[in-house]
Amino acid sequence: MKSQEGRVRVLQNFRERSKLLRGIENYRVEILEANPGTFILPKHCDAEALFFVAKGRAAISLIREGKREAFNLQTGDILRVPAGAPFYMVNKDDHEKLCVAKLIQPVFTPGHYETFFGPGGEDPESFYNAFSIEILEAALKTEGDRLKRLFGQQKQGAIVKASKEQIQSMSHHEEGGSWPFGGESSRGPFNLLKMRPSQSNEYGRLHEANCNDYKQLQDLDVAVSFANITKGSMEAPFFNSKATKISLVIDGDGYYEMACPHLSSSQSGEQHYGGGGSEERQSGPRYQKVSAQLRRGVVFIVPAGHPVVAVASNNQNLQIVCFEINARGNERYPLAGKRNVINQFEREAKELAFNVPAREVEQVFQNNKQDFFFPGPRQQRQGRASA
Amino acid sequence: MKSQEGRVRVLQNFRERSKLLRGIENYRVEILEANPGTFILPKHCDAEALFFVAKGRAAISLIREGKREAFNLQTGDILRVPAGAPFYMVNKDDHEKLCVAKLIQPVFTPGHYETFFGPGGEDPESFYNAFSIEILEAALKTEGDRLKRLFGQQKQGAIVKASKEQIQSMSHHEEGGSWPFGGESSRGPFNLLKMRPSQSNEYGRLHEANCNDYKQLQDLDVAVSFANITKGSMEAPFFNSKATKISLVIDGDGYYEMACPHLSSSQSGEQHYGGGGSEERQSGPRYQKVSAQLRRGVVFIVPAGHPVVAVASNNQNLQIVCFEINARGNERYPLAGKRNVINQFEREAKELAFNVPAREVEQVFQNNKQDFFFPGPRQQRQGRASA
Amino acid sequence: MKSQEGRVRVLQNFRERSKLLRGIENYRVEILEANPGTFILPKHCDAEALFFVAKGRAAISLIREGKREAFNLQTGDILRVPAGAPFYMVNKDDHEKLCVAKLIQPVFTPGHYETFFGPGGEDPESFYNAFSIEILEAALKTEGDRLKRLFGQQKQGAIVKASKEQIQSMSHHEEGGSWPFGGESSRGPFNLLKMRPSQSNEYGRLHEANCNDYKQLQDLDVAVSFANITKGSMEAPFFNSKATKISLVIDGDGYYEMACPHLSSSQSGEQHYGGGGSEERQSGPRYQKVSAQLRRGVVFIVPAGHPVVAVASNNQNLQIVCFEINARGNERYPLAGKRNVINQFEREAKELAFNVPAREVEQVFQNNKQDFFFPGPRQQRQGRASA
Repeated sequence: MKSQEGRVRVLQNFRERSKLLRGIENYRVEILEANPGTFILPKHCDAEALFFVAKGRAAISLIREGKREAFNLQTGDILRVPAGAPFYMVNKDDHEKLCVAKLIQPVFTPGHYETFFGPGGEDPESFYNAFSIEILEAALKTEGDRLKRLFGQQKQGAIVKASKEQIQSMSHHEEGGSWPFGGESSRGPFNLLKMRPSQSNEYGRLHEANCNDYKQLQDLDVAVSFANITKGSMEAPFFNSKATKISLVIDGDGYYEMACPHLSSSQSGEQHYGGGGSEERQSGPRYQKVSAQLRRGVVFIVPAGHPVVAVASNNQNLQIVCFEINARGNERYPLAGKRNVINQFEREAKELAFNVPAREVEQVFQNNKQDFFFPGPRQQRQGRASA
Repeated sequence: MKSQEGRVRVLQNFRERSKLLRGIENYRVEILEANPGTFILPKHCDAEALFFVAKGRAAISLIREGKREAFNLQTGDILRVPAGAPFYMVNKDDHEKLCVAKLIQPVFTPGHYETFFGPGGEDPESFYNAFSIEILEAALKTEGDRLKRLFGQQKQGAIVKASKEQIQSMSHHEEGGSWPFGGESSRGPFNLLKMRPSQSNEYGRLHEANCNDYKQLQDLDVAVSFANITKGSMEAPFFNSKATKISLVIDGDGYYEMACPHLSSSQSGEQHYGGGGSEERQSGPRYQKVSAQLRRGVVFIVPAGHPVVAVASNNQNLQIVCFEINARGNERYPLAGKRNVINQFEREAKELAFNVPAREVEQVFQNNKQDFFFPGPRQQRQGRASA
Repeated sequence: MKSQEGRVRVLQNFRERSKLLRGIENYRVEILEANPGTFILPKHCDAEALFFVAKGRAAISLIREGKREAFNLQTGDILRVPAGAPFYMVNKDDHEKLCVAKLIQPVFTPGHYETFFGPGGEDPESFYNAFSIEILEAALKTEGDRLKRLFGQQKQGAIVKASKEQIQSMSHHEEGGSWPFGGESSRGPFNLLKMRPSQSNEYGRLHEANCNDYKQLQDLDVAVSFANITKGSMEAPFFNSKATKISLVIDGDGYYEMACPHLSSSQSGEQHYGGGGSEERQSGPRYQKVSAQLRRGVVFIVPAGHPVVAVASNNQNLQIVCFEINARGNERYPLAGKRNVINQFEREAKELAFNVPAREVEQVFQNNKQDFFFPGPRQQRQGRASA
């Protein structure tokens, strides 16, 4: 949806993008941008939504259980907007755009959702206009001509300019109220960036929230994380045991690499044997490198079990927000650095797995004493060169 | 299934009806009609079932945990019959047909279920007959000829005439025992019509039960409601936040209207953009009116989020039973009348959303002081004309 | 996967085998065989796994929450290996093959999973090799040439010969430690064969474990059972109310028979009627006999609700392990023997269902006083002949 004052982009359904992504076909990603001083018209969706405020300052009003709930939103806030709940927002900043990334989970048609604008007129169309005029007359006890006028004035799109006074009056309580460092509200927003990072050193910082931190994540079975990788640095290669990550670059640039066995196996096909109905894989899986440049706005998917690494360019910090789907019981396994998984193996397992003396394995896997964020490829070379 | 003494109709799978309904493709609707004084043969299904007794008086026996449980059933009763539990019923009324609407949730093949008749012979076929005769001889320690006779006598179909004495003897404990106003049984039937209505005025009455009222609804994630709209009256336009309603007209006639954005969007297709893999909707959704006459036996679906309205004809009350799927956390949002959602918006939101002074919005949306059931279109006109 | 020291067979996806099996398409079965004195290389999978040790003695190490957990495994043990957890095993027996049957539930791509080998080199390929060499250099703080050597030595496949000393040292704590008759560990293995049988007589024995016995089964919603049918004997015909059984013959031979209405209905198609969108089944379902010889390694599926019977040959006991999917609230209904379901019906129901006097029904269904395991077809005939 586009209007003069902002736009809404909906990412293509993942399954249409690749059959390999059919496991997350019921998740969609939407990105909202609204100009300073604007109002985002009331609507509801047939989908659960999880908002992440990538940039800006907003106020949101939601109708639930017959009451209006109002919250301020700021950069780093996450907020669950339940399916069907009507809501509207203002970008209350005078100068800055508002940018919100949304994880969407349709409740009716798998992988597909719609927006329902009640108020409004011709643009956005009001769903009231779908009813016969005699139905509306009876329901609203008002003559048809008057209703036609009322439901015909809004023609400026779903995001409209608002006056200073209007914004002021819808700006709710004061700044800084978003949990965990402001007033608590189990339904209100939760600020991911104000959480203590779970990983932090000079090479980067990781903030993570799961349903223990923000209860509203529980029945979505989603966790949210935010990585800020220092320029020239990298995240450890790692994999998630169960969760699949939908990652969105918020700022900066760099690249990522991922090892994927599915790509190769779907290319080569699988071998079937007659009688027993079983297939015997003649050789182990081959891992293909999936890699791409990262820049603001790029979305990439890291399926469960897949080893991945992200590297920031030398120019800018790389900031990535991740929605982690299927989060319950998920564990992150680092593949390098202080806590890498190989270090946990018994000596004999190392020997037999690598077919070299255990000592050689240990020397390599104990070299890097850092935890999770490291100097990136170029920094390391320079480091070794100057050592 | 048809026999001289009654019939079973199974509604077409929803997905086959429309791709838009694939979200409820694992639910089926079955309607049983049995003549007065009949016996419905023992069987089990590979599906969970929720019975609603639309008309009549019955007795049902179920086998669970090695015991027989017996319940009386009367108009308005709901009863969960678990997957696989063998059961049989009698229509114990001498004069009235028994009519039961069933919501079916297959447990093995999505969207498809089967009925297994154990006893019986050729019509309905007994599944015992599928086994080799030497297996049956060994399992039942009985000679083959005798078994062939035993499993060959029933040829009258799945619903058969029973004698007064047979019915009497299977009619279990006395009338009026169905919960909540008779003796409680967490597994027995629950009478929806005896519940206090959640909405009630001269224009209509709404009875609702969710898993707090009847525990057996919990793991089905279903709620059941019954609306009785007074002749010439209407239900408020409203939408359900999460639940999708499968509605069956039990009695009366009238019509419904629903606003549907999916229909239009699936017609026009979606627009995709190259590089970023994202789609930008050039305009907001358009809402198409879906509308149909309602009469006894008609089934209609109201997906989550979709605004809908139902109107009774001037001749008869309109009675509708609804199975609400995905009921947990569902909220009903009225779009007109005393509690309509627009009234909850702030003044500025009304102004900006409708692009008219807030006062004009308020005058219209505060006009109708009734709650949920209103005079219908014709009554209103007459009311206004005579005022 | 095949190597000189063992092999891994993966059964064809059930849905590819038959559309009727699409309800279990997200379950796979894998069978591992490893020679005596071998090491199964470390790996993780994007799938939950439930191991059943069909034969042999092993030790397994799993990495979880940053620690290594080690367990002994013996014949009859079940063990849950969570998605993504790296693990390795040894066959610690000098003479016997190790045979493990696995129920696999993919977490990312429905019905499809992959194995990720971290250590290793060219065979099995290490996923480390998918990353650029500069990424590995930075992550492991080690020069490229050394890494290439380290990740290039293993060329012997996923199962390799180990020395006596290596096996000794990875053989963990002493034998007999597997719960319930050794030390308890809620995450360690649970021995099905050491449980008290739920059914036992001279004709057979049934061991069963559900989530009350082994907590790790809870979120998989799976139960496991093991039937040992004495040679010449049979299991009662029965059906499961909700669970679908994936059965694997561990030893012995015999045959099974199953009554299936789906086969016939999918052949004949369904009849639809125009206007009302409902279908009326003109006749009841027909039951087709599905039957096959059973021998070691054969897998057969028994869907929920389907009556089935298994018979051991006269030469050998028939041993079958079953993974029961959708196990919560499942109930087994016997169709013959002491507790058969027909015996639970009221007299009138028997009369009406079979269309013969109740006494005739009772004589047949009360003939066999045994419970669940009976003499098989030939034994019975001999019994009757000699009586």
